[in-house]
Amino acid sequence: MVKRSPAFSTEERQGVYRAIYERRDVRSHFLPDAVPDDVLHRILDAAHHAPSVGFMQPWDFIVIRDLATRAAVHKNFECANQRSAQCYQGEQRELYDSLKLAGIVEAPVNICVTCDATRTRGNGLGRQTDASVAVYSAVCAVQNLWLAARAESLGVGWVSILDIDDLKATLGIPAQVTLVAYLCIGYVSEFRPQPDLEEKGWETRAPLETVIRKDRW
Amino acid sequence: MVKRSPAFSTEERQGVYRAIYERRDVRSHFLPDAVPDDVLHRILDAAHHAPSVGFMQPWDFIVIRDLATRAAVHKNFECANQRSAQCYQGEQRELYDSLKLAGIVEAPVNICVTCDATRTRGNGLGRQTDASVAVYSAVCAVQNLWLAARAESLGVGWVSILDIDDLKATLGIPAQVTLVAYLCIGYVSEFRPQPDLEEKGWETRAPLETVIRKDRW
Repeated sequence: MVKRSPAFSTEERQGVYRAIYERRDVRSHFLPDAVPDDVLHRILDAAHHAPSVGFMQPWDFIVIRDLATRAAVHKNFECANQRSAQCYQGEQRELYDSLKLAGIVEAPVNICVTCDATRTRGNGLGRQTDASVAVYSAVCAVQNLWLAARAESLGVGWVSILDIDDLKATLGIPAQVTLVAYLCIGYVSEFRPQPDLEEKGWETRAPLETVIRKDRW
Repeated sequence: MVKRSPAFSTEERQGVYRAIYERRDVRSHFLPDAVPDDVLHRILDAAHHAPSVGFMQPWDFIVIRDLATRAAVHKNFECANQRSAQCYQGEQRELYDSLKLAGIVEAPVNICVTCDATRTRGNGLGRQTDASVAVYSAVCAVQNLWLAARAESLGVGWVSILDIDDLKATLGIPAQVTLVAYLCIGYVSEFRPQPDLEEKGWETRAPLETVIRKDRW
């Protein structure tokens, strides 16, 4: 007898697609409201149930609430962002400067997701042909967390404009560990209908057909 | 007036967590049943709504149904897996050899997810400080696809034991494009309650508490 898991109900399936379509990269709309420990635990457990190569689970999650630490990370961001801004000129620079690109201090919780590729859990299975797959596992954990957070009405913003070496020093992350993502998390005043960068005219969404190929490139 | 998106219903939220907890890396349980075009379109659109740095959308999705192509990829896997198996000895080697690690030919659809980091969409925003973030965006697309597929009762298996250069040649992928993931997709006879590698005794799940740190490493 084949034992089938019950199919998702219409509303359960709708929940998955809502999380995917209504997820936003939040920077501007964080509220100071505390994130309860049980909610935080649920989104971390969701992250921990991501796929991982060889079941190695190479991730760690540094949960940062300490304001002095977040202030230091915000300062890191401001310096990195000033340097990044210099890549743009004229109207593009004006638009860049008008964008809010991080909510490190406004969001009450920050989570740093790391990958330790030296971890022996999983005994190397699946990792002999492509060394990147350990880090990819940690990214899958980020996306699980992000979608679970959306279902909990929590906004998440991934801040990549950071001096990574400085950030590793601030957080005491060992040299062999890769800092994969720095996330700002909190309740929000609203989830915007479009991505900020689309709404502000920085970039448009590509039509789906343009990124699908048949059988070969 | 603050406009709040309606909170997820209990059942919608349950759908998100079901997708996360009941998602499996499928290798053994694929059925030959065709995947309808509209279902395939939905999971690809879910992938295309992943977060991406600077909204650059660096991904392409090569949808492979052609059996000759899948047979070539399966041969690639078998060679790579024979080499990988040599990393293990004794009982561990016996266990490794007993594992089914790919369902390339059994699954009716394969999808190769790539990342073109040379793409100018997004104008480089967010990418000056960490060159890896473009690839991370493509991995987020994989995870969106995987969870949407679970909600559609489709199994997905990520095969990493492949000679990547050979695979790029088989699929005609340009040199500057990174091959991020090779996925096998199809309906399944069942979703197992545990990951295969846990069920077979290859590895155990780490307790969540062991991967959470407070404020610093």
